[in-house]
Parts: sequence; structure tokens; C-alpha cells
Amino acid sequence: MPYTYAYPRPALTVDCIVFGLENAGDLKVLLIQRKNQPFAGRWALPGGFVDVGEAPEQAARRELEEETGLKNVFLEQLRTFGEPGRDPREHVVSVAHDALVNVADARVRAADDARQAAWFPVGRPPPLAFDHAKILRVAHNRLQERLRRRPVGRELLPRKFTLSQLQHVYEAILGKEIDKRNFRRRVLRTGLLVATDQTQKQVPHRAARLYRFDARTYRRLAQQGFHFEV
Amino acid sequence: MPYTYAYPRPALTVDCIVFGLENAGDLKVLLIQRKNQPFAGRWALPGGFVDVGEAPEQAARRELEEETGLKNVFLEQLRTFGEPGRDPREHVVSVAHDALVNVADARVRAADDARQAAWFPVGRPPPLAFDHAKILRVAHNRLQERLRRRPVGRELLPRKFTLSQLQHVYEAILGKEIDKRNFRRRVLRTGLLVATDQTQKQVPHRAARLYRFDARTYRRLAQQGFHFEV
Repeated sequence: MPYTYAYPRPALTVDCIVFGLENAGDLKVLLIQRKNQPFAGRWALPGGFVDVGEAPEQAARRELEEETGLKNVFLEQLRTFGEPGRDPREHVVSVAHDALVNVADARVRAADDARQAAWFPVGRPPPLAFDHAKILRVAHNRLQERLRRRPVGRELLPRKFTLSQLQHVYEAILGKEIDKRNFRRRVLRTGLLVATDQTQKQVPHRAARLYRFDARTYRRLAQQGFHFEV
Repeated sequence: MPYTYAYPRPALTVDCIVFGLENAGDLKVLLIQRKNQPFAGRWALPGGFVDVGEAPEQAARRELEEETGLKNVFLEQLRTFGEPGRDPREHVVSVAHDALVNVADARVRAADDARQAAWFPVGRPPPLAFDHAKILRVAHNRLQERLRRRPVGRELLPRKFTLSQLQHVYEAILGKEIDKRNFRRRVLRTGLLVATDQTQKQVPHRAARLYRFDARTYRRLAQQGFHFEV
């Protein structure tokens, strides 16, 4: 039986922008191929309708798992997109959430409303359904800003890593090369890193020193924010 | 005639957190006293239901004007609050928007669903309806963070102002006194200010120099962000 309301109301959805990093690759985004109309066959951000009694954050986690199999992802609310024309069916307001994961830890498989689920380079996505190209751009900009305000890398790198590996995280997110000497000087000055007495193993070039994050400083700077010029 | 949907959906509202500053006063927030149930007679943030075909930003501007008479306010999207229990009637998801205005420019009068509209000190609000005390806290934290990342003051100060007037803006938002010497040194270093050859008039103490904002630097730093340690 259909539900009735005294006044019409916009529909409410969530969308998930899951960014992914691999060892040496570009920054990726997780997309699904839509099974149903509208935009059947088109690639889109994972997402769907919010149930009554369900917080948007919860709906985002549920839809991401249903459509891509991904779970235990730390999704943060990004922004709400509510322009009336963004969905051809009716006025749909979407609360977008984003996350940054290590692609190697994130096995995806399509299910539910998704025909396929796959990683695409952020800079070269296929044509996207709805206003998802715009949402992806906003999310990517925000991720780049966040790089200058909060520590990044703990979920992406092994426990011990080289400065080059950390630099690659920044370069992939910014989509450009950064100066190695400046980066090293600045990142060491933040107090985020602790040098270990170990070096990289089994590499063809001269073995680089391994570092780890200082857990307390990482937590403190994640909470209060800082300014990292990069 | 009631509208019908195949599936139930949460209701969608907007709430407006309008912060206000006066010459020498504390930071204020604009509240309305509710006329209707639930929480009739209780103070609350101005806001209301989003119409179908209306962007949330547009709904926020409309509701603010309807309830308080305020218009032409630069409202920015803050965050969406959607926990199921936050409204006793049903599951209501609210897109919160915030703004910072000069109280002297903002004549308010209650109308529509509001019995009264008035400014309250942010630190000592009356008991608030719904989860509005929480929304106000989140908005105030965000405003304080923004103070460290973007230039502030253009909409709040006269065209020419003293460094003490600018310092007061920062102190009112942070809710604490800041060191005068450090503040002056840091704010002059940002390049945001241009010294004029004029001084304050008709003051009992020694007349202070007047400054103005450098429009280009202000715009650039507003756009790209910066880090202002305060």
C-alpha cells in the first residue's frame, strides 16, 4: 500500500565517493554500472535511497556494501546536493559521503542494483549518470584541500614505509609531481614521522630508510588540523 | 489531496545558523520562538520544510526571510543532520546552513511560524528545540576553524577600521582574548591589510591608525585558503 503525506516532499538518497590508492598507481574512484533506469548501463557512484529510520551515514554504508561488497569503510559526510533538475525522475536530494581506501585491501564485487563494480582513474572516468561527474569533482577538490589540513596515509601505507612511498600518496591525490627535497624537509618537520633503524629490503636501488607514523601526533593533528604546504 | 509514494521517505528540512557581531559585543546567534507544536514556545534555529522543486539553499533563504525578515544573507551549507530520533514527529533530515552578519545591518522581525525573533549570545542560548543545541555547537566550531583558514571581517567591519576592531572580531568568534602584539604581527604579515593615512576620530584615547582590506588578496585567500595562527 502506498504511503501518503499531506505535502509532497523531495526524495532522499546517499552517494558514495570511494577514492582508492595502489602502490604506484594513480588515484582511483570506485564506480558501479547501473542495472536499472534511469541511466541503465551508465557508470555511477554507488548509492541509493535512504530508508525511514536510517541515518544518512548508515544508508551510505549499507548501499556501498550492497552494490560493491565493500564494508568497514570510514565514510565521511561530504556535502548535500539538492538542485531540482539533478535526477530525471523527480526532485532527489542526495547526501554525498566520501572515503579513501587502499585498493589492495578493498575487494569489490558487483551486486544488487549494480551490473559491475570497478575502479577508474579519477582523472579519466567514463561518462557518469546524474550529476555524478560534478559530485566527483567536488569530492576530489575537498580531498586535495584535506591533504593540506590533516595528516593522510595511515590507512594507505604499510606500517613501515619510505618517504618515497608517502610522497607517492600526496602526488597521486594532487595529480602532479612534487619536489622531493621540499616534501622531505616539510614532512619531517611536522613531527608525524618516526625514523626506524630499518631500511627497505630487496630493492634494485640503494635501500631507503623506513619510517612509521607517530600515533599520538597523527591523532592530535587529525583532530586539531594543521597546515601542510604541499 | 494527500500525495502518495510507493515507499515511505524521510522528510527534508533546512535550518539556518545566523551568527551576528556587533561593535563591541559577544558573538550572537539569531533564534526564533516557535509558534507551533512540537516545541511550541521553545526557541529554535529558523528553518522549515524544503518544497519539491526547491534547492535546499533556496529553502534556507526563503525560511530565514519568512521567519525573521532577514534577506540577502550569504548562507553556506554547513552539514546535514539526519539521525532518526531528532524530531518527535517523524524521521526528518535537515540540511543546516550558516552565515555571519553584522547585527547592525540585520534588522529582524518575527513572522510566519515565529512568535519572536531575537539575537542571543552564542555561549548562553536559551533551551533549544530538537537537536538545535548540537547543530549550534557544530556550526560554532566550524566558524572558529574557518577563522584559521579564511580571511574574515569584510562583511562585519566598516570600510576603514582599526586593528583593535579587527582583533575584536577574532576574539568574539573565538570567545577568548588573544594577545594584541602577536595578533598585530601575524595579521599584518598576511598581506590582507593596507594602512591608510587616516586615524580614528573622536576617541578619548590616542587615535589609532585606520586600515582597509586589500580586495585582491582578500579574494585570493578566501578562495585558496591560508593558515592564520590565532
